[in-house]
Amino acid sequence: MTTQQIVLAARPKGLPVSEDFRMDTVEIAEIKDGEILLKGLYYSVDPYMRGRMNDAKSYVPPFDIDQPLNGAVIAEVVESRSDKFRAGDLVAGNLPWQKIIVSDGSALKKVDPRLAAPSHYLGVLGMTGLTAYFGLMHIGKPQAGETVVVSGAAGAVGLVVGQIAEIQECHVVGIAGSEDKTKLLLSLGFDVAINYKTTPDMKKAIAAACPKGVDVYFDNVGGGISDAVIANIAFHARIPLCGQISLYNSEETPMGPRLQPMLLTRSVLMQGFIISQFQEHFPEGIQQLAKWIKEDKIKVHETIEHGFENLPNALLGLFKGENTGKMIVKA
Amino acid sequence: MTTQQIVLAARPKGLPVSEDFRMDTVEIAEIKDGEILLKGLYYSVDPYMRGRMNDAKSYVPPFDIDQPLNGAVIAEVVESRSDKFRAGDLVAGNLPWQKIIVSDGSALKKVDPRLAAPSHYLGVLGMTGLTAYFGLMHIGKPQAGETVVVSGAAGAVGLVVGQIAEIQECHVVGIAGSEDKTKLLLSLGFDVAINYKTTPDMKKAIAAACPKGVDVYFDNVGGGISDAVIANIAFHARIPLCGQISLYNSEETPMGPRLQPMLLTRSVLMQGFIISQFQEHFPEGIQQLAKWIKEDKIKVHETIEHGFENLPNALLGLFKGENTGKMIVKA
Repeated sequence: MTTQQIVLAARPKGLPVSEDFRMDTVEIAEIKDGEILLKGLYYSVDPYMRGRMNDAKSYVPPFDIDQPLNGAVIAEVVESRSDKFRAGDLVAGNLPWQKIIVSDGSALKKVDPRLAAPSHYLGVLGMTGLTAYFGLMHIGKPQAGETVVVSGAAGAVGLVVGQIAEIQECHVVGIAGSEDKTKLLLSLGFDVAINYKTTPDMKKAIAAACPKGVDVYFDNVGGGISDAVIANIAFHARIPLCGQISLYNSEETPMGPRLQPMLLTRSVLMQGFIISQFQEHFPEGIQQLAKWIKEDKIKVHETIEHGFENLPNALLGLFKGENTGKMIVKA
Repeated sequence: MTTQQIVLAARPKGLPVSEDFRMDTVEIAEIKDGEILLKGLYYSVDPYMRGRMNDAKSYVPPFDIDQPLNGAVIAEVVESRSDKFRAGDLVAGNLPWQKIIVSDGSALKKVDPRLAAPSHYLGVLGMTGLTAYFGLMHIGKPQAGETVVVSGAAGAVGLVVGQIAEIQECHVVGIAGSEDKTKLLLSLGFDVAINYKTTPDMKKAIAAACPKGVDVYFDNVGGGISDAVIANIAFHARIPLCGQISLYNSEETPMGPRLQPMLLTRSVLMQGFIISQFQEHFPEGIQQLAKWIKEDKIKVHETIEHGFENLPNALLGLFKGENTGKMIVKA
């Protein structure tokens, strides 16, 4: 039997291009005792994957050349020789970008499609929702009445951050890159939404939107947008560093105004984090997010691209802001 | 009766010059009931004072033009009409740069010259020692076996930070600006001392001195030295931001490599702080520092300039690295 996989053909310089990916056809063996055969249904594409395309030390190992990329996938068990899974089960886990996958099931979790749409387990009930929840609640620690600014606000994490900040009764300002996105933010209860692409002076715009300064800045993008927010940072502010998507494709070391004088004179905390450090609290986070979704306090938005072969395009689309909410590919 | 005071004559542009200060002679009234007359003995000069010379929002209000500068002073009570103080008492507090001072005594603390030399209450038993103690122990949280790097290591705060880190059984690397200073650091038990003025590639030098990466970077200086240290930062490192002396005299916004990608991919915490946020723990800090001094685990170094009129020069000397340990002016 054969199947298709998407491999890293070359390490990109700057913005990745289609030629950095290749679709290969590979043989797959019969499954052995203890193994299962999976069919990929939904594949997650995430900004952090750009870092894995470089051969650089980070919190996740780099992808290998000529090997399939991998990430969070929702798959269906189509054949099982394991007593832990049955044909028809849906599972979530880190899996290769491959249509049909042989697995020993060791790092997979069953998902219940009756509790939520399967794709939600890649987004608001998966890593992106948990990233929003723990980054905001455990590092940002927003208090009622405080001002929370989130960049990349219409992205997978940003949409959840803003909605959680609203639940905490904060003044919530979202930054996004189109009128459609800022309209969506306002419809979800954000107090102010700023389209950075049509705003000539972001520093002034943030100052106007945050008259008491910025108490929590949840940073998904970095670069000049972050400079503008940090120029308005309040005393004792907290800055959870979640992403720096504006810089991921830089070919040279990005330069900018030095931050430390501002962080020093205003006693600001800046904290890089990865979601795995909160692993022991995941059940709490999932339970809380599921409750808020059920109560309609968090509305779920996904951008679903169709066709396994479109995985590279969907990933590239993240860097062009083509997604609203979680970007997912349905095979 | 008249006395002398040192006032801010002009707000400096860049590095302050003597002309930014002026010595005025002023009249002082007879003290009234409840007041005391003080004679300044030891005046503290500190890098943070540079920020107060600008008309800028910070954690302490700016100095006013034509008004005396002020800071930590040890003074002797020469006349008292207060029942809280007697002639001959020594007191510490925030006082104007003036030879003879009238005070209501409200924010003054008595110091006991039998427990420590009076000047120590401006340094290791004063704000600088507490800054070192709380910045390192409460934010840096060094663990035995970890690598601690301190910049401005031969300065008032740096010397104490390095010695406390040694007590915590860390691998301690100090960065300073002369051979005399690096020799002093080694004599105090620092494991490695780097003279940044004679080291062509600081990034490589830090890498060689910190083979397991930098777990705690206690930053007193900012700028290129900090870039070199942060390029070697370890996963889950902590960076207490204490000072940025290399940038205080910048006339334009200092630019540098953006930090957030590194802080993000290595899950690093950076925290600006001011010592007043630890106020409720001061007694613990003073007790611990006094114990370590008594046990000879912390050795005290001071640079004492003589003559009240030399206060401006002593302050300017901080930016030229003229001090080893705490810079103090004895009137």
